[in-house]
Amino acid sequence: MAGNDKTRKEAAAEPRDPAIRVILLPRDTNKHGTIFGGVILSYIDLAGAAAVSQVTSQRIVTVAIKEVVFHAPVLVGEAVSFYTEVTRIGNTSVTVHVDVESKRQGKRIAVTEADITFCCVDKDGKPVPVERN
Amino acid sequence: MAGNDKTRKEAAAEPRDPAIRVILLPRDTNKHGTIFGGVILSYIDLAGAAAVSQVTSQRIVTVAIKEVVFHAPVLVGEAVSFYTEVTRIGNTSVTVHVDVESKRQGKRIAVTEADITFCCVDKDGKPVPVERN
Amino acid sequence: MAGNDKTRKEAAAEPRDPAIRVILLPRDTNKHGTIFGGVILSYIDLAGAAAVSQVTSQRIVTVAIKEVVFHAPVLVGEAVSFYTEVTRIGNTSVTVHVDVESKRQGKRIAVTEADITFCCVDKDGKPVPVERN
Amino acid sequence: MAGNDKTRKEAAAEPRDPAIRVILLPRDTNKHGTIFGGVILSYIDLAGAAAVSQVTSQRIVTVAIKEVVFHAPVLVGEAVSFYTEVTRIGNTSVTVHVDVESKRQGKRIAVTEADITFCCVDKDGKPVPVERN
Amino acid sequence: MAGNDKTRKEAAAEPRDPAIRVILLPRDTNKHGTIFGGVILSYIDLAGAAAVSQVTSQRIVTVAIKEVVFHAPVLVGEAVSFYTEVTRIGNTSVTVHVDVESKRQGKRIAVTEADITFCCVDKDGKPVPVERN
Amino acid sequence: MAGNDKTRKEAAAEPRDPAIRVILLPRDTNKHGTIFGGVILSYIDLAGAAAVSQVTSQRIVTVAIKEVVFHAPVLVGEAVSFYTEVTRIGNTSVTVHVDVESKRQGKRIAVTEADITFCCVDKDGKPVPVERN
Repeated sequence: MAGNDKTRKEAAAEPRDPAIRVILLPRDTNKHGTIFGGVILSYIDLAGAAAVSQVTSQRIVTVAIKEVVFHAPVLVGEAVSFYTEVTRIGNTSVTVHVDVESKRQGKRIAVTEADITFCCVDKDGKPVPVERN
Repeated sequence: MAGNDKTRKEAAAEPRDPAIRVILLPRDTNKHGTIFGGVILSYIDLAGAAAVSQVTSQRIVTVAIKEVVFHAPVLVGEAVSFYTEVTRIGNTSVTVHVDVESKRQGKRIAVTEADITFCCVDKDGKPVPVERN
Repeated sequence: MAGNDKTRKEAAAEPRDPAIRVILLPRDTNKHGTIFGGVILSYIDLAGAAAVSQVTSQRIVTVAIKEVVFHAPVLVGEAVSFYTEVTRIGNTSVTVHVDVESKRQGKRIAVTEADITFCCVDKDGKPVPVERN
Repeated sequence: MAGNDKTRKEAAAEPRDPAIRVILLPRDTNKHGTIFGGVILSYIDLAGAAAVSQVTSQRIVTVAIKEVVFHAPVLVGEAVSFYTEVTRIGNTSVTVHVDVESKRQGKRIAVTEADITFCCVDKDGKPVPVERN
Repeated sequence: MAGNDKTRKEAAAEPRDPAIRVILLPRDTNKHGTIFGGVILSYIDLAGAAAVSQVTSQRIVTVAIKEVVFHAPVLVGEAVSFYTEVTRIGNTSVTVHVDVESKRQGKRIAVTEADITFCCVDKDGKPVPVERN
Repeated sequence: MAGNDKTRKEAAAEPRDPAIRVILLPRDTNKHGTIFGGVILSYIDLAGAAAVSQVTSQRIVTVAIKEVVFHAPVLVGEAVSFYTEVTRIGNTSVTVHVDVESKRQGKRIAVTEADITFCCVDKDGKPVPVERN
C-alpha cells in the first residue's frame, strides 16, 4: 500500500490526465460564499464513475467511499482537477483512487484524495460480475 | 460506539426530525438513469453543515467524512431523509453523524450513514475555537 | 374548515414530519440577494406531489393552487420545511394543505401555507379516477 | 373586473410582448417525465418581479399569489410565455397579472393565469412606500 | 446581405416577438459577479433551435455558429431577449439569425447577434433532408 | 495560420492538459435527449476564461467568438475535454484557441474548435490594458 502510494507520488511528477477538471462558480457556494465540501464529493463520485467506464460499459452504482480528508478549501474561480487510478477490480466491483488538486496562482494545491468503490449491477440493481471492455 | 449505535436505532422507533428531506428528480440522474452517489454525498455534507449551524453560527468548512457505505440505491421520485446527530464538539471542530433513509412504497429503506467533521474557520480559513450559540 | 384549521394547529404542537426540508443556497437568490418567492412555490408543488404519491402511484398533474400569502421572507442558509396533509380525495383529484416554516436562530417562523390540488391523469393527460394504493 | 378581463382578452389579439419566454427542458421534469407545476409557478414569480422592476427599482419581496388554476399541462420543448400587466400600485405594494401561454404546433395554448403581489421593502425587510421610477 | 440587414433593422421598429426572453440571475454569474458570455451563447443555441422547430419537427443538431461579437455586457436582473429569423433552409440544414437585446432602465441595449445553423438528423445522427411542417 | 494549425496538431500527439474536462449528464440534454450545442459553447467560454486567468488576474468579459463548426455530436456520459492555447495578447484583449474533444470507446473524437477573445475591463466595464501576472 505504501509502495502504491509512492508510485502515485512519482507519477504526479509527470503530466497526468484528469478524469474531470472543473471551474467552480458562485452557484457552487454555501451561505458563507465558500465552495461546499459536498460539491467536491459529488465530483469525486463522477470522476470515479468515469474511470470505471473505461474498464466496463456496464451499469454501475456507488457502493462505498473510504474516509475523505480535506487538506485545503477550494475557492470560486479555481480549476479543480480529479485524477483517477483504478486500484482494484474485484468480482463484481471496481475501486478507484481519486486525487483532487486545485490550481491557485500557478501552484498545485492538494485538496483531498479518496478511494471509491462501484459495483456492476443488472437492470434490477443486483450485483453482477464485471465484464471488462 | 456499539452502545451509541444501539441508542440511535432505538431512537429511530420514535418520530425523528430530518435535517434535510428531498425528492430526487430526473436532473439528479447519471447516464444510466439512476441517482448518482455523489448527489447523496452532497446532501450529507449539506445536512451535516445544517446540524453544525445549530451549535455555532461561525463560518465552517468540511474537514473529513468517514467511510460511507451505500446499502441501497435511491430511485427517482423518492423522498430521501438525512437525519443528523452532533456526536462530538472538539476545540475547533464539530462532528455530525448522518443517517440517510429513503421511503419506498411506505417502507423506510436504510440508504447509508456517515460521520462528517467540520472545522470553524476565520475569514482567512484558519481554524478557530468553536463558539457555541 | 375552521375546525380543520384548529386541528392542524394543535397537531403542530407535536413533532411533525416534513414532506420536504431544504437548505436554501445562494443559487436560489434573486438580484437583491434574497430568496425569491418562486423557489418556495416550486417546493410547495413538489411537497404536495410527494403527499399525493402516498395516496396513489398514478401519474399526476397540478391543477390548482389556492391563494398563497407570504408572512415572512426566507434567508439564505435557513432550513425550510414543507409539512403536508391530504385534505380531500375527490373522484379524480387529491388536495393537499402545505405549511411552510423556516427555522431562524432556533425559532420556527411561519413562512406561508397553501392548498394545492393535483389530478390523476392517463398517458394522454386525461383525468382518471384516483386509484388508492 | 369583468371589464378588465375583457380588455385583456382584446389586447391578446394584437402582438404582445412577454416578460419571460422559456423553452422547457428535460431538467424541468418530474419523475413522470412531465413539467412540474412548480416550475411554472416559479416563472410566474420571476415574470411578475420583472414587471415590477419597470415601475420601481426598489428591493421587493413576493407577498401573495391569488388562486392559480392550470388549464393545460406544458410539454418538454415547448416555448412558454409569461405576459404581465401591472394591475394595481398600492402604497407599498404592486400587483401584476400574469398570463401563461404555451405554443404547441403553431397554436397558442392558455396554460394558466395568476395575480401576484409584491411589496417594496428596505434593507431590513420592512415595507416602504413605492417610489416610482 | 446589407439589404437583409436593413430589413431586419426596420422590422425592429415594430414590436417583435422574442424566441426566448430570460431574466438573468446570480447563479448565471462568473467569479467576477458578471454574467458570463457562455450563458448568452447557450441561449442563442436554444433560441435558434426553437426557431427551427417551427420549420420542422425533426431531430436537429447544431452544426455551426458564425462569428459572435459581444457589443455590451449583460447585468444580473436584466431581461435578455433573443429574436430569431430563419434566414436559409437548405437541403438538410436550417440557418437562423439571432439578435440579442437587453433592457436597461427602459432602453434596449444591443448585446450581440449570431447566425447559427442546425442540421436535421436521423436516430443515428446522419443528416437527412429537411421535412417542413 | 496554417503553420499554427500544424503546430497544434503535432502538439496533440503528446499528452495535453485540458482547461476543463466534464462528464455530460442527462440534465444537459434537449428534448431529443441529445446534448445541446449551447452547453458546449458555454464550456468553451469557461475554458477560454480559465486560460486568460493564467495570463492576468484582471476582470474580463467575452468580446467575440470566431465561427464554430461542430464536427460531431456529444453523447450523454462522455468525458468532453476543452484544450486551450493563448494565441494572442493584445493591448486590452487576450485571444484563446479552444479544441474540444470527446472520448468514445477509448477513441478521441474531434468535436469542435473555437477562437474566443476576452477583454480586460475595469469595475465600470471599460477596457483597460492587460496587466500580465
